[in-house]
Amino acid sequence: MQIRQIDAGEFPRAWPIFRDVIAGGDTYSYPPDLSPEQAQAMWTDPPSRCFVAERDGEVLGLYMLRPNHPRGLGDHVANAGYMVSPAARGQGVASAMCEHSLQQAREAGFVAMQYNYVVSSNEAAVRLWQRHGFAIVGRVPGAFRHAVHGPTDVLVMHRAL
Amino acid sequence: MQIRQIDAGEFPRAWPIFRDVIAGGDTYSYPPDLSPEQAQAMWTDPPSRCFVAERDGEVLGLYMLRPNHPRGLGDHVANAGYMVSPAARGQGVASAMCEHSLQQAREAGFVAMQYNYVVSSNEAAVRLWQRHGFAIVGRVPGAFRHAVHGPTDVLVMHRAL
Repeated sequence: MQIRQIDAGEFPRAWPIFRDVIAGGDTYSYPPDLSPEQAQAMWTDPPSRCFVAERDGEVLGLYMLRPNHPRGLGDHVANAGYMVSPAARGQGVASAMCEHSLQQAREAGFVAMQYNYVVSSNEAAVRLWQRHGFAIVGRVPGAFRHAVHGPTDVLVMHRAL
Repeated sequence: MQIRQIDAGEFPRAWPIFRDVIAGGDTYSYPPDLSPEQAQAMWTDPPSRCFVAERDGEVLGLYMLRPNHPRGLGDHVANAGYMVSPAARGQGVASAMCEHSLQQAREAGFVAMQYNYVVSSNEAAVRLWQRHGFAIVGRVPGAFRHAVHGPTDVLVMHRAL
């Protein structure tokens, strides 16, 4: 598996994964009908940077890295979001992208990583981030309207770099 | 005291308060050199709405109300930020704006209000929000570089509407 940064021009290769992930309505707050142009802008316009995980030329997942606050007195904290192709689950893609993003964040000078919006019912993700050193530092009641479960708590997770 | 919504054209009347508040580097993550144009865009461009508290034609404070996530499966939760003129502290301006914002948020259909970034050293604000029904639901270590205290925890606060 290779992980590398892409520019906006390559985003359409990763879009089908993005589309399939948000269509589930179970992990991201993005509207399920978000357009590819909006997704591309949010994940590739600076200061956001977009990365893909590939094997044999096939995109298995993508992630976005950015400052959690773009400029100012909170811009020492990074933020990231990850998406894995439904067909590539269980192969360690999210784990590899997480480690890659932590290293990229360190190299960019960030001193911590914060996830603002981890859907609490996504227990596999919560456990994965915990294995990668993240602690649950907040829990917002009912902040996510889960497509299946309805109002669902959202976790804030954090680790130092 | 009167509280009313303003449009972008009136924002310059409130800008001196915004400028003085962020210059302190003790409550907001905005860069202390943020331009008036950037501030105006962030606080008045839809879906953000800006309100001012006035007495005898003088602006005492301003606040911003918006969805915490602009569109999608988290847009039932509101977010707000408040600023009071240093000259008008201790007169209940923040308290009045808080109540006003909660009512505006209810009328706009939000079911909860979330503050993402309450600087923990701002103890008067934390107590004030608690008196207005907010609970501390998260604490992010060192997420704010306080001008005086250095790395300072940031609180996430929440209440149902």
